Amino acid sequence: MNLRLAKNSGFCFGVKRAIKMALKAAKENHQTVTLGPIIHNPQMVSKLESKNILAVDNISQIKNRATIIRSHGVKKNVLDRLKEKEIEIINATCPYVSKTQKFAEELDKEGYKIIILGDKDHPEVKSLYSYINGDALIVANATELPDMSFKKVGVISQTTRSINDFQKLVSELVKRSEEMRIINTICNATSVRQNSTIELAKISDAMIVVGGKNSSNTKMLAKISGKYVKTYHVETACEIKKKWFSKTEDIGITAGASTPDWVIVDVYNKIIEIIGKLDKKIEKVEDIPGFKEER
Amino acid sequence: MNLRLAKNSGFCFGVKRAIKMALKAAKENHQTVTLGPIIHNPQMVSKLESKNILAVDNISQIKNRATIIRSHGVKKNVLDRLKEKEIEIINATCPYVSKTQKFAEELDKEGYKIIILGDKDHPEVKSLYSYINGDALIVANATELPDMSFKKVGVISQTTRSINDFQKLVSELVKRSEEMRIINTICNATSVRQNSTIELAKISDAMIVVGGKNSSNTKMLAKISGKYVKTYHVETACEIKKKWFSKTEDIGITAGASTPDWVIVDVYNKIIEIIGKLDKKIEKVEDIPGFKEER
Repeated sequence: MNLRLAKNSGFCFGVKRAIKMALKAAKENHQTVTLGPIIHNPQMVSKLESKNILAVDNISQIKNRATIIRSHGVKKNVLDRLKEKEIEIINATCPYVSKTQKFAEELDKEGYKIIILGDKDHPEVKSLYSYINGDALIVANATELPDMSFKKVGVISQTTRSINDFQKLVSELVKRSEEMRIINTICNATSVRQNSTIELAKISDAMIVVGGKNSSNTKMLAKISGKYVKTYHVETACEIKKKWFSKTEDIGITAGASTPDWVIVDVYNKIIEIIGKLDKKIEKVEDIPGFKEER
Repeated sequence: MNLRLAKNSGFCFGVKRAIKMALKAAKENHQTVTLGPIIHNPQMVSKLESKNILAVDNISQIKNRATIIRSHGVKKNVLDRLKEKEIEIINATCPYVSKTQKFAEELDKEGYKIIILGDKDHPEVKSLYSYINGDALIVANATELPDMSFKKVGVISQTTRSINDFQKLVSELVKRSEEMRIINTICNATSVRQNSTIELAKISDAMIVVGGKNSSNTKMLAKISGKYVKTYHVETACEIKKKWFSKTEDIGITAGASTPDWVIVDVYNKIIEIIGKLDKKIEKVEDIPGFKEER
């Protein structure tokens, strides 16, 4: 039986950076909070709690603590209110998101109608939207565009959308607009991770997708993998069941952008234990055969 | 036998405007020249010559005359040299072209790499190109793009290209660029004229395309029409042959953006004469059945 890890699994650049900033802050401050869970992964949130980094839901809960802004970013008015408090702000907003916020704000001031490709309920999109004073539109794809023409239009995207959907949106808008400005901050970590998952799913009898049940990108990986082969979405190793592997020859593992390395390692070891191949326990994700760190 | 004129035949807005400016200038000045033929139509050029508006090829030929810049526009250095002379400049550059020139110049100054969709040998494209000091690319379609990525890219187009080609170019560029600015100055007169031609060709046994043999858009009309039905491209009524209509029931006429009304009228009357339906001679293009003036 073979057990393989998809290339480019786990943390993306922005998440890695945010966690690093949080851990550094925890060392330097005794009282650190994150505004909302730092990432959509309950295991990581628990780990940070054990280091006294608590997640709070509301600004009013913050009292004389260093506050970490998570990689998705926060609404502009939330940031403004934080600045009014006498606290240290550790802004771990993904640099791609910050760039888009700045671009949206600038174009809005110049009178461009802003169109956002994204999920209107996602914190990142809510954050982007908050930087726009004028009228803005949020669409999940080009077909959601209203039937109208535009004079000056600015186009931005949630960092995790597919470039293909972005191309379709821009292509539709260019024929309906006199002038357009576009910034492409779509992070290819998402498509790279999805492609690696497809690659592995194609040669596997079963796929284990590891990551938060509340993580959009992990759920998407499970959906994509499920098109090719029987797929199980788990948050931790505890959920792994022996019966899944009774008739399998090739098993694949992949993990979302918010899945910590140690959770992946646990899942890997658990499966090895079940299929009876445990020579020695793997300690680091880097030691799992097939592991390849993304940027 | 039926003889029909395609809706939206003949002069586009920019050409109509340029001719009007030229005729007005001729009335007010005794010595008026156009730099290059005002439009790609020998009959119109001859008519202007009869009103003492001569076409010159070179600035050095201009001596104390009012000079008309044709609708395609001229190169920036040509305009600068004209300004140095003590002459009146009548700038009949199509407003869509002027807008694109201005946009290209502005973006070039801001460090954008400019990409022009167009025919590199066309005067309009040469004029646009001359407004760019930095490196610019001219491509006839998206497949001509070099295999590279861009930081800041500005996209413009020759006014007569198809919106479909423009969409394909922008769609390809958006995935290869960090930031894009686009101005859409594609004039829909071209596609409207082409669609009317197709509409008429579909219900005709023969099509007569009227316009300069040196006119790109007229040649394109003949090519498109030829896909549907036997098509003849003529510059004037003299070229019309009786034998073309020996077995036809439905004859269609269309004309390029640079074809003067009176040339269309002549062709119409000539065919009516041949097919033996001449009750009274048509005097104005507006009186031809089916005529509909475009914007």
